[in-house]
Amino acid sequence: MSRIVEPDPSAFSGEDARFVRDFAVLCGIGAAEHGGVHRLAGSAADGEQRRWFAELLKSEGFSVEFDRIGNQFGLLEFTPGAPFVVVGSHLDSQPTAGRYDGAYGVLAAAHAAFGLASQWRLAGIIPQYNLAVVNWFNEEGARFKPSMMGSSVYTGKMPLAEALATVDASGVTVSEALSSIGCLGDGPGPVAAFCAEIHIEQGRSMERNGVTIGVVDSNWAANKYEFVVHGEQAHTGSTVIEDRRDALLGASLLVVAAREVADLFPGVLHTSVGQLDVYPNSPVVVPSRVNLLLDLRSADEAVLAEADDLLHQRIREIEAAANVSIEQGSSHSWPVTPYQPEGVELAEKTAANLGLSHRRVKTLAGHDSTNMKDIVPTVMLFVPSVDGISHNEHEYTRDEDIVAGLHMLTNVVRSLCNGELSSGAADD
Amino acid sequence: MSRIVEPDPSAFSGEDARFVRDFAVLCGIGAAEHGGVHRLAGSAADGEQRRWFAELLKSEGFSVEFDRIGNQFGLLEFTPGAPFVVVGSHLDSQPTAGRYDGAYGVLAAAHAAFGLASQWRLAGIIPQYNLAVVNWFNEEGARFKPSMMGSSVYTGKMPLAEALATVDASGVTVSEALSSIGCLGDGPGPVAAFCAEIHIEQGRSMERNGVTIGVVDSNWAANKYEFVVHGEQAHTGSTVIEDRRDALLGASLLVVAAREVADLFPGVLHTSVGQLDVYPNSPVVVPSRVNLLLDLRSADEAVLAEADDLLHQRIREIEAAANVSIEQGSSHSWPVTPYQPEGVELAEKTAANLGLSHRRVKTLAGHDSTNMKDIVPTVMLFVPSVDGISHNEHEYTRDEDIVAGLHMLTNVVRSLCNGELSSGAADD
Repeated sequence: MSRIVEPDPSAFSGEDARFVRDFAVLCGIGAAEHGGVHRLAGSAADGEQRRWFAELLKSEGFSVEFDRIGNQFGLLEFTPGAPFVVVGSHLDSQPTAGRYDGAYGVLAAAHAAFGLASQWRLAGIIPQYNLAVVNWFNEEGARFKPSMMGSSVYTGKMPLAEALATVDASGVTVSEALSSIGCLGDGPGPVAAFCAEIHIEQGRSMERNGVTIGVVDSNWAANKYEFVVHGEQAHTGSTVIEDRRDALLGASLLVVAAREVADLFPGVLHTSVGQLDVYPNSPVVVPSRVNLLLDLRSADEAVLAEADDLLHQRIREIEAAANVSIEQGSSHSWPVTPYQPEGVELAEKTAANLGLSHRRVKTLAGHDSTNMKDIVPTVMLFVPSVDGISHNEHEYTRDEDIVAGLHMLTNVVRSLCNGELSSGAADD
Repeated sequence: MSRIVEPDPSAFSGEDARFVRDFAVLCGIGAAEHGGVHRLAGSAADGEQRRWFAELLKSEGFSVEFDRIGNQFGLLEFTPGAPFVVVGSHLDSQPTAGRYDGAYGVLAAAHAAFGLASQWRLAGIIPQYNLAVVNWFNEEGARFKPSMMGSSVYTGKMPLAEALATVDASGVTVSEALSSIGCLGDGPGPVAAFCAEIHIEQGRSMERNGVTIGVVDSNWAANKYEFVVHGEQAHTGSTVIEDRRDALLGASLLVVAAREVADLFPGVLHTSVGQLDVYPNSPVVVPSRVNLLLDLRSADEAVLAEADDLLHQRIREIEAAANVSIEQGSSHSWPVTPYQPEGVELAEKTAANLGLSHRRVKTLAGHDSTNMKDIVPTVMLFVPSVDGISHNEHEYTRDEDIVAGLHMLTNVVRSLCNGELSSGAADD
């Protein structure tokens, strides 16, 4: 288990030191017990960090606005009317989560922008594109499903009304949650020309290979399913075993089957059940219903298709073995999609110029940039995670790596603002 | 699946017809969608049925009181100062449960008492013991654990303070719930000399054997465990499979193992997991903790001991296979214990006199009488369940059987009130 070392600004100077100092402050908002954070989307802690972040942006001369789904933008216009380079990530977290996931990318974006703005002001340079720092709403999908909600609405992949009406487990809507923390705007947000995001890897490939910068060239494909296992309520004491239609037994066999399918494709298939709810969930009642979320992910679409077939074959066997029926509810999937190759090349050139070791990587997790790359040229960067730990309070990335990532992001954003990449769709 | 036929008083006369009519009214309180009831202990529906039951008892000349744990008593004193024959069951239910479980026994007790009181008044008979109809609090243990709470406090098996401080899933205490429905008294309740309870079988043995009255001679032994499976939070997408410590995978293997152990002892061992809670239960987080309740039951203590050994051996294997640790939390168990043989004989003689087919049976489920038999001689009776369905809205017992049970109970209670059984501990 990694040991988190507190961020230490004294080892750095200038913008780097200010960035590390601000990151240490941000870690204290919604802090959890074991070094992590607990800042669910639209919660009081999320409101607190958004107010803090707004003040930080304003103090550097950025104007702050929320769009109609609560995405928070810090805008700096050099050329009125020109589209924006949108750079950032998300501040919301999973329950009892790590402090780096998302938050690092938002704060690195802000300090990259601060550094560039200050250099350009001093040198009297007017870049071709304007600059927008973004904190996307509800990337995690922990309180409100699905994940990547803010960027999905921004990119037109999810209808606004559907997102705003989404409820959490206690019936609070996204609209109510955003209003309660004063973060619901009414516009569509700034027009994007390019996008950049930096994030921790959440895996061990970069650490294992001794690489400081990961240049993401594509995302894994994923199939995400909601299953409902239907059984029959019965008395756990008196009902004979052969009469039982135990929904929890069926669900448990499905959880085990998902792992067994992963074990058939070592290293190239990830499967999981993260959420599982039992009804009536009473000590002496055989459960009649279990709802669960199951996902399959692979960088190889052929593997994913084969795994999917195997899983559905297992489901039919489980229905017979446990005397239950398994209903497939709403599901969604995404294919392997590449980030624009010219963005990948730009990032590789930038890393080389900075003397930073780098390597092409794939993202196994979803990110807001996965949405953004479908509408504008997008650069996605990783820094290493110690032991690959993520969605866990012990998530940790070393100070030297978060600062190297800041340098990398700053230079990529400079290139994008200067129009070094062929322009994005919104600029056509 | 059994089809519930609505109770039809017109097929009966006198006390029988009044009983069936009252049962039909009771089925309407806290009625669920598919013919069952949803009347959790201390809920608004429980308050409603307790007020209704109090009015019914008062209208027949019984005085109504609640003891310090919310057990509801209808008292009729013939001989001031004499101890009571306590007869009844429980009105609380599981979520979306059947209408017969508990409620039948409470209402049959009331009408048995009404019939006897009326006969004795007319004949000028003063029985040796007084009569108490009881509605035990929280037999089900669905909202507040453990089950059989009211009779456990009454019989001194559970400390009052511990019971009153027990909280439900939203933090409401038993004391608060009982106060909110006006059912928290302060006394110890009436002194018992004998006890009788009638209940549906919740199994198919009587139906299969064509028997109308089951005379319970003992209960199955049970081991009930709370297990906590400990894993490690991680990202479901990016964390490689061999790094995962998935608490839900471990819990699922345990659910499956419990069934596999039952399958090794066909017909003589019942195992189940009725309750299972996942943390953090978020779509993209590998669960770090699962709490679950697992029980093993058998009429054969040697089988139970062997099954218990096998289960714990499987737990060690699961810990290794899923890279989790499994902690055994609070647990309780009870041995096979007999009901007093002289009570069994009294019940058999009574059934024979009434011309009712009868058979000795064991109870697989716990009942309040299981507690009461440890302090006073207790008679436990069953009537058949169609298809053995219970803890399910489709639970059903035919009108002719519930009325036959009423006759049986009335005659047993008459014998107990007349001192035909050697007196109980409390009368020594």
